[in-house]
Amino acid sequence: MISPQDQALMAQALRLAEQGRYSTSPNPMVGCIIASNDGRVLSQGYHQVAGQAHAEINALNNATADVRAATAYVTLEPCAHSGRTGPCTQALIDAGIARVVIAMQDPNPLVAGRGIEQLRGAGITVELMSNAIAAEQLNRGFIKRMSHGLPWLTIKTAASLDGGTALHNGESKWITSEAARLDVQYLRAKQDVLMTGIGTVLADDPNLNVRLTSEQLKTDGPLPQPLRVVLDSELRTPATAKVLDEQGAYLIYTAKDETAYADFQPGRVIQAAVDDSGLSIEWILHDLAAREINSVMLEAGPKLVASAIASGLADELVLYLAPTLLGQGTRGISTLGPLDTLAQRQDLTITDSRSVGKDLRITALLNNT
Amino acid sequence: MISPQDQALMAQALRLAEQGRYSTSPNPMVGCIIASNDGRVLSQGYHQVAGQAHAEINALNNATADVRAATAYVTLEPCAHSGRTGPCTQALIDAGIARVVIAMQDPNPLVAGRGIEQLRGAGITVELMSNAIAAEQLNRGFIKRMSHGLPWLTIKTAASLDGGTALHNGESKWITSEAARLDVQYLRAKQDVLMTGIGTVLADDPNLNVRLTSEQLKTDGPLPQPLRVVLDSELRTPATAKVLDEQGAYLIYTAKDETAYADFQPGRVIQAAVDDSGLSIEWILHDLAAREINSVMLEAGPKLVASAIASGLADELVLYLAPTLLGQGTRGISTLGPLDTLAQRQDLTITDSRSVGKDLRITALLNNT
Repeated sequence: MISPQDQALMAQALRLAEQGRYSTSPNPMVGCIIASNDGRVLSQGYHQVAGQAHAEINALNNATADVRAATAYVTLEPCAHSGRTGPCTQALIDAGIARVVIAMQDPNPLVAGRGIEQLRGAGITVELMSNAIAAEQLNRGFIKRMSHGLPWLTIKTAASLDGGTALHNGESKWITSEAARLDVQYLRAKQDVLMTGIGTVLADDPNLNVRLTSEQLKTDGPLPQPLRVVLDSELRTPATAKVLDEQGAYLIYTAKDETAYADFQPGRVIQAAVDDSGLSIEWILHDLAAREINSVMLEAGPKLVASAIASGLADELVLYLAPTLLGQGTRGISTLGPLDTLAQRQDLTITDSRSVGKDLRITALLNNT
Repeated sequence: MISPQDQALMAQALRLAEQGRYSTSPNPMVGCIIASNDGRVLSQGYHQVAGQAHAEINALNNATADVRAATAYVTLEPCAHSGRTGPCTQALIDAGIARVVIAMQDPNPLVAGRGIEQLRGAGITVELMSNAIAAEQLNRGFIKRMSHGLPWLTIKTAASLDGGTALHNGESKWITSEAARLDVQYLRAKQDVLMTGIGTVLADDPNLNVRLTSEQLKTDGPLPQPLRVVLDSELRTPATAKVLDEQGAYLIYTAKDETAYADFQPGRVIQAAVDDSGLSIEWILHDLAAREINSVMLEAGPKLVASAIASGLADELVLYLAPTLLGQGTRGISTLGPLDTLAQRQDLTITDSRSVGKDLRITALLNNT
């Protein structure tokens, strides 16, 4: 039985897990609270950096009180395998933990349930919470990769109240406020990959980097600098493009073969599959997932954004609406191709809307499932 | 000196005034609280229906306690002239009121200050509050008419998240939810005029009426049924159009002369001035103001909406955003004509955004001043 006390302690473990938000990828964020039967927290830990100790190990190592016969609250099923670190199940068994409450099973279908099985085999009471929404939300990128072999794809775009992003002559920059652009930095910091198209590289030459300090990010860990990815079928990215600079790594997906790659760092250009609309977004997303990428944010022009939406592989839209009317001009996310009936429209569910400076930020899930 | 107690009592008078929101036009909403010096409310009243007693008279008539030496809180400067009802200043003087606190002056520049003058001339202490934002907000239509000879013009429109309102084949109806359409009914109920264009009449044959009950509107007063106005330069409105039905009055503005009016009720067709873009919106709005119209809501197609925005006479935009992407199609409010630089854009200030069912309602003021 999951009691209200269990719920409260798990909520605490989930908040703890979030402290790893800039540094656990490709691993999930995990938090662990060890508490006595009357709800007193005896120790806690979270997974801080990929390759270092898991949450359970940190919680056990941090304990100064006796944790025998205590309950461990873990936001994700403890691992039963020896990966980058040892199996957490064995550590919990060895420590004499009597009961383990788990927010959600391992999303990898190949190993899901094994940790629970091992713990139960050692006589530990294991309880799996039935409503794992908060735990799933925490690691939606990791979960999507484990369950679908694809990263979580967020599309970030900006538009005027009348749905425009550029005037008909192409003048477009900075329709949103400085506050919105700062807000985008925080979104970027949580991504494994920032993706754009060659059109944006040639037109705007973006850095696609994170320019936030430890203080701004409220983190002691390493500062995040997502992998920058350019979709560039003809390999036109200039050697001087800012996305190739030294501030972070980059990858270019192209339709060209490797005889054309001389100007780029070895291994940084990848020949992708091609479909009717050009480079195959599906192929590229699978390739990124195979590189342990959990999350991708696309910041691109209307054509690539429309392709990503049309692919059915986008999960979320973040739309900054600037309080202005631009009139006739290039439309933002609207060049989806001519839809013939309302039934062909792409529906979404708005999950959040809030003011960011003078702009409005709307977050919506694409109803692809 | 305006004390915090004065502020609180005036806030109460403003809420009271709002009870007349469906029935005072063309008059302003006004509330009046009469209170003792220690802040006890002795009586109160508000202006209920145009042509009936003003707020001050109602408050004095409702009094059961002695109001001599009391303070009257009035949300608008009391009238000094005998209009539809007698002068309120004299009634306050006769009742022995010692102090009058006023939220804002009469917005009619021809009479502003006269009520205050008369009260002071009778030895009453009069205090005018310096920050009249809430009082101005309450009667922004009346104030605009008094100060500019124009009604408050709200543009109501709906769009998908990508700024579309119709598919390229014209299929467009009901992109927003039932909850949003119900919300529009409440917006309509507060208007003096609902305006549309002949294009919408021919395409959608809207009723342009209010279908809410007394219970829904929480009012005991008469149910509002705004005047319906069609902009129809060629006088193509069919005799069977729903906007001409018996549920309310209508007006048609046309470029034709009166020889063409035989099919319509006498006095219901008006020849308007014409400018470069067709019927002159400015001329029509001035004509409506001359008919004591305080507020107009335009619900029309993109061409008329764009003309209204381009006229510089629109005050507010109410945009319902449906969580869907429609792709290429007719744009909603965006056919403003080709703007050449970002400096020509029309900026707004977002004053509110909230969920209405699954849609988002954004309210923004046009920065025309």
